Amino acid sequence: MAGGVKQERAVQTRESLLRAAAEVFDEFGYSGASINRILKRAGLTAGALYFHFDSKEDLARAVMNSQPETIVPWLDSRGLQRLVDLTLNWARRLQVDPLLRAGVRLTNEQTSFGLQDASPYEQWVEIMAECLRDAHERGELQAGVEPGEVAAFVVEACTGMQMFSAVVSGRKDLMERVTRMWRLLLPGIAVPAIVARTELGAERALTPLD
Amino acid sequence: MAGGVKQERAVQTRESLLRAAAEVFDEFGYSGASINRILKRAGLTAGALYFHFDSKEDLARAVMNSQPETIVPWLDSRGLQRLVDLTLNWARRLQVDPLLRAGVRLTNEQTSFGLQDASPYEQWVEIMAECLRDAHERGELQAGVEPGEVAAFVVEACTGMQMFSAVVSGRKDLMERVTRMWRLLLPGIAVPAIVARTELGAERALTPLD
Repeated sequence: MAGGVKQERAVQTRESLLRAAAEVFDEFGYSGASINRILKRAGLTAGALYFHFDSKEDLARAVMNSQPETIVPWLDSRGLQRLVDLTLNWARRLQVDPLLRAGVRLTNEQTSFGLQDASPYEQWVEIMAECLRDAHERGELQAGVEPGEVAAFVVEACTGMQMFSAVVSGRKDLMERVTRMWRLLLPGIAVPAIVARTELGAERALTPLD
Repeated sequence: MAGGVKQERAVQTRESLLRAAAEVFDEFGYSGASINRILKRAGLTAGALYFHFDSKEDLARAVMNSQPETIVPWLDSRGLQRLVDLTLNWARRLQVDPLLRAGVRLTNEQTSFGLQDASPYEQWVEIMAECLRDAHERGELQAGVEPGEVAAFVVEACTGMQMFSAVVSGRKDLMERVTRMWRLLLPGIAVPAIVARTELGAERALTPLD
């Protein structure tokens, strides 16, 4: 009983640290984010931090790899619509969720602070490939379309579009860029009935905003 | 006559500075690249540098915006094949050309050193849209395909795929990623005869390697 409470508190502490670190990484980047700044933001001691994370690098890796949990739990669609919803909600949450923003920022800047961690990309590829395998089973894909190939390409395209969008519009036009991607890509991968039926608009981005 | 020689020398000096700066930016990133290091690499004086460039930032902008000239002069195909060739040669040259590598690196990292310059992206979009307008006139595009839309999406996808590829393979698999993009994208934008005829392999990357 007491052990259960302790464990729950440890999970909450870890979550608080992750959120505080994300906010600081999002604002100041990797090099500008000091452990002290993160502790102050979290209202916790160094002891609490080093119980959960070995170093600033370890904390950065955890933030980088927490991206999917900011979106996936909110999705309830299936197949290709789920994949589309994933990208639309990602575009929306990138404007408001520090954990996702910091995850994306650190993943993109990682080589400049000496990291080479492909897992944030690979995680997304696997989640998207799962949607596409489901789409395949539901008869939504054209013959010969490989879930893993499409998934890797969508991750690449999303990575680049948020960078382009950040410079052009501070990511304000990101959702339209996601919609454009699907307008161009769906006709080459989905059967005609699904191309016609899949919804690509901003109204699919329904995750809570905070 | 003497004026012509002087002008030619100035162009050469500017080119030497740009190449030296690119090498230093490519190796050390923006913050690690000092003016002194760049001058040493170029074998030139500060006077020569400040005649051509106002500051390190000005030099970085010039490198960022020099990407197309490392590829476009070598292309001789037309329409969609030209667009494909552009991306394949970009993938190859990114492995060997410091001017292109530094241009891409600085463009991607620019927000971390306080720049927000969309022109390197927009330049590529315009060059690609021109290929697509040519493709349209040659009857290579499906009805309703907008050159500017496709061009912007291809720039986004290429931006993201080189980042993903850098982390996974040090960009060794970049050419295959480019080929995959076209396998997925061409069926949705080109007429069937062009989908069948367009060459997507590494043998299209023919620009000189140094």
